[in-house]
Amino acid sequence: MTTLPQLSEYQARVNQLLANKLDGLPVNDTKLLEAMRYGLLIGGKRMRPYLVYTTGLALGAKLEDLDGIACALECIHAYSLLHDDLPAMDDDDLRRGQPTCHKAFDEATAILAGDSLQTLAFDFLANHPFSDFGQQKMPTLLQQLVAAAGYQGMCGGQALDLSATDKRVSLNELETIHKLKTGALLKASVTMASECALQVTDEQKTTLATFAELIGLAYQVQDDIIDITSTQEQLGKPKGSDIEANKSTYPALLGLADAQQKAETLYQESLQALATLPYNTDTLADFATFIVRRTH
Amino acid sequence: MTTLPQLSEYQARVNQLLANKLDGLPVNDTKLLEAMRYGLLIGGKRMRPYLVYTTGLALGAKLEDLDGIACALECIHAYSLLHDDLPAMDDDDLRRGQPTCHKAFDEATAILAGDSLQTLAFDFLANHPFSDFGQQKMPTLLQQLVAAAGYQGMCGGQALDLSATDKRVSLNELETIHKLKTGALLKASVTMASECALQVTDEQKTTLATFAELIGLAYQVQDDIIDITSTQEQLGKPKGSDIEANKSTYPALLGLADAQQKAETLYQESLQALATLPYNTDTLADFATFIVRRTH
Repeated sequence: MTTLPQLSEYQARVNQLLANKLDGLPVNDTKLLEAMRYGLLIGGKRMRPYLVYTTGLALGAKLEDLDGIACALECIHAYSLLHDDLPAMDDDDLRRGQPTCHKAFDEATAILAGDSLQTLAFDFLANHPFSDFGQQKMPTLLQQLVAAAGYQGMCGGQALDLSATDKRVSLNELETIHKLKTGALLKASVTMASECALQVTDEQKTTLATFAELIGLAYQVQDDIIDITSTQEQLGKPKGSDIEANKSTYPALLGLADAQQKAETLYQESLQALATLPYNTDTLADFATFIVRRTH
Repeated sequence: MTTLPQLSEYQARVNQLLANKLDGLPVNDTKLLEAMRYGLLIGGKRMRPYLVYTTGLALGAKLEDLDGIACALECIHAYSLLHDDLPAMDDDDLRRGQPTCHKAFDEATAILAGDSLQTLAFDFLANHPFSDFGQQKMPTLLQQLVAAAGYQGMCGGQALDLSATDKRVSLNELETIHKLKTGALLKASVTMASECALQVTDEQKTTLATFAELIGLAYQVQDDIIDITSTQEQLGKPKGSDIEANKSTYPALLGLADAQQKAETLYQESLQALATLPYNTDTLADFATFIVRRTH
């Protein structure tokens, strides 16, 4: 499995929703709005929306609720990329084969576009036409988005990642970094989607959260592997950029073979978690397969 | 009126609530947490919380609801200062007489602390113990916070302000910048607080919003005046820093005397708005007086 069924359909869906949202904003500041559009729509695999739709539809959630959640999470992800790429952070010139936002515009605009995209995530929770059931779940959805995005989630993970640069960290420390930096949003994709499904029990939600944690970690291990086994053309950024930036990676800590084995183990455990659920979770299993089989 | 009744009481109250929130966060990353604390607790007049409490209590809102709103707005304000001070933006070394966050820590940490403080604002809406009535109003409160903070509010205003640097803008353009950059949060302080009061009519809410717009603008005009009439010691930053940064200001566009007259006119109009309300709004009138009489 190196492609995902319905990926392009979900990509098109979320891209349209995000574009509609930006089109609906007043043109106060053309440059800022264009930078937000650049950051949000220039590309991206839309893994988080894919997980939201796949999880939610497997569990019987309403599509309109999943739309709002998918857009909110993608806004958080997009803002984090704009800020992570800044010279003071990872100092990347390329993202998805294109100039990073601060290269295409300027640093101030990239900072403000990121800030605005974070607010836009909460704008989706506030203003997207959720179903009545989705609206009832809003306090929980808001709590989950906050926990995934902020100090206790993604932001904290990026800070830990920066602190770990130029240092050799332990495997445990690396795992904590990734659980927060990338894992928190991937987990929220699954938990927020499952929150909008009517009949899912708390135990099943916990199992789904475990599945999400496992594939979140597998995703990062595979990302580290790809960074050294893929080509610049495939990556859309220079090969070996993690090593270049003195980042700790799974292959660096474990060696390539053991890192590949780790991805495989996480994958198998994620499938075992899914197998306990009384739903057709084939699409989630496909996602897990895709995560560890992708080569770029 | 050069001091505000109960200002120190409300300052102490909101500072304690903000400190408690930070104390409750897990210590994942000491540096990031300290930078958030620095940005949130190093000082500040707490004008937005003051407006929240003063408005809400005049209208009979519950104190616990005002607490959550005051903290949320102050988190947004604090994050904006961290980002505005960055070298790529206003490039300020001093804030409230202390090194700015990126000087005390580093740029990456200041960016991430700002990002985390923005999320923390929404964390207050998500997790603060609002009353049942406050909880019922949460969808509206969330909408108002989003509108005040993001592209359509403060962020958009900062972008317009940066675009206007080194240019001569019209009075209308300057007013739009300030309505968004500082006015939006001040207005939200009043509108979010009035949302939590049980018996306030929509018409009264509109009048309160008008009052807030008028004093928001007066606040900025007076700020511009103070920037050239105050001392560095009073300001906690170099005098004339707006002029130094080639920012358009009211005194620059109108001359000092006409800028002072403009502040006075806005002040009188704000009092007229208050006078139509069937509440004791003396404390809001005191605030308006304070805004245009303060000298630093």
